Amino acid sequence: MKEFEFIKKLSDLNRYYFSNKDLGIGDDAALLGEFLIAKDLIVSDVHFKREAGLRNILFKLITSNVSDIAAMGGTQPFYALLGLSTDGSIDLENFITDLKYVLDYYRIDLIGGDTTGSVHGIFLSLTIIGRKNRFLLKRTTARSGDILFLSRPVGLSKLSLEKELGIAQHSIHPHYHYNQKAEVALGGLLGSLNYVTSCIDISDGLGRDLSHISEGSKVKIIVEEKYFDISYLEKFNIKNPFDYILSSGEEYALAFTIDKNYSSEFKIYRKQFPDILEIGFITDGEGVFLRKKDNSLVDISRYGYEHL
Amino acid sequence: MKEFEFIKKLSDLNRYYFSNKDLGIGDDAALLGEFLIAKDLIVSDVHFKREAGLRNILFKLITSNVSDIAAMGGTQPFYALLGLSTDGSIDLENFITDLKYVLDYYRIDLIGGDTTGSVHGIFLSLTIIGRKNRFLLKRTTARSGDILFLSRPVGLSKLSLEKELGIAQHSIHPHYHYNQKAEVALGGLLGSLNYVTSCIDISDGLGRDLSHISEGSKVKIIVEEKYFDISYLEKFNIKNPFDYILSSGEEYALAFTIDKNYSSEFKIYRKQFPDILEIGFITDGEGVFLRKKDNSLVDISRYGYEHL
Repeated sequence: MKEFEFIKKLSDLNRYYFSNKDLGIGDDAALLGEFLIAKDLIVSDVHFKREAGLRNILFKLITSNVSDIAAMGGTQPFYALLGLSTDGSIDLENFITDLKYVLDYYRIDLIGGDTTGSVHGIFLSLTIIGRKNRFLLKRTTARSGDILFLSRPVGLSKLSLEKELGIAQHSIHPHYHYNQKAEVALGGLLGSLNYVTSCIDISDGLGRDLSHISEGSKVKIIVEEKYFDISYLEKFNIKNPFDYILSSGEEYALAFTIDKNYSSEFKIYRKQFPDILEIGFITDGEGVFLRKKDNSLVDISRYGYEHL
Repeated sequence: MKEFEFIKKLSDLNRYYFSNKDLGIGDDAALLGEFLIAKDLIVSDVHFKREAGLRNILFKLITSNVSDIAAMGGTQPFYALLGLSTDGSIDLENFITDLKYVLDYYRIDLIGGDTTGSVHGIFLSLTIIGRKNRFLLKRTTARSGDILFLSRPVGLSKLSLEKELGIAQHSIHPHYHYNQKAEVALGGLLGSLNYVTSCIDISDGLGRDLSHISEGSKVKIIVEEKYFDISYLEKFNIKNPFDYILSSGEEYALAFTIDKNYSSEFKIYRKQFPDILEIGFITDGEGVFLRKKDNSLVDISRYGYEHL
């Protein structure tokens, strides 16, 4: 069974009380009264190498959770519960120091959790709690005609990961990808605007993540090559720099759509967030495609990676 | 660093928003508005063997979380978020079936979570959400003079665990301990009474769990041997049957204290919950002791096990 199918089946397991069917499993966070709640877990030798150090590992864990709240347009997350399972290779004193560093960075309180041993490996699970904003951003509400934006350039995480895994010798720090920042401020802004029609964070890769909006909203998404300046990737002397934009995961940039009638109104915020880039548009149909400069269309819906 | 010290340090990591200092880490669940939220995790070859089967494993995971809400006197928990990390040895089809069975047993909706791979082992994390009852039961509020109760006999989980681990050949099913039930109904009752002064669930062993009340409330706890009928343990021909009562973990019975002026009023509920047993009392001082029939006192605060 594929992850997608498995998650779909999991999402049917809420038949007693849950009324926000479109906000449970499959979206970034679930709605609980006025609260947004999300959960992510990372595993040694799957999501991180121990050599990266506790601070990097914890930064990645907490960023991925904070990003889930941002992707729903939530306000600053404030509470977290931590699950730690360790085989004894963690120095608990350092763990506290590094955890405090990351919680302070995002201004989050730890309010609960569980710690336990493991036979092999380190497992870290975080549950994060934020508050619903004026509007709730979903994956299922993009509409034909909307304009597609990306909050900042992506691709370097993949380069850095390849370096860490010894796949390639790019001139980038092998732990760069642990330190991507969640878009807390931008998520909070987007959730306060009445013309943002959908939003997702880039955790699996731009192509694959956009396919969640495409499938959820039943629309076709066109990403246009012409919008991208790829000079920041070309300097690494890699073969297909654009592939890194489409498939780099754990970026935690936000991809979002805006009602085209409000695009000039939205421009005033572009000063505040100068890295935001228009990258394409939504149209009728299905699938996620890259329109190259020669006007040919390439299916990019599988660019990225599948877990499990 | 010991688990206790580690948890204490973790509990200091909430300085931005959290006002319920006595309800964060260290208690069974944290308070979030009107909601109670708890998180537990279990790991293969630490908390369960795969041979026990998915249904048993999931039952144990969800019971331990539901029990955390019951121990706070919360009402029926209603939402859960699941984290699953698997090395590929799980049949996902069966996983859905068994998860549905357990969620149905406790009438809980799954509203989110995360699934991922692992290199070694299965890691399951659950976040559970319930609602605060009229009163919030804590570990820190037992008072000298209170009467101590146990919701039902304990000890068989440890016998069953020893069988599963091949330590002893008791005539009990090796998976019996996976199927202990959380005290949902009793927890809901206790949280509605204004004279229940403290409560905890038996997850580590009666002695060790009572030490959390003793330390949190700064009181001495006396458990009286005379109250216990141990015939249900004696029939297993074990050496020290009483040790099983004091140290059997993952029982999910509740231990709670009641203002002694209300003990006759509480009796009316004893019919509804006939297994409830008076087992001792609270007095001034510190520590947890068993008063044997010969009147000697034994320190039982370390009976049970320490994680990590």
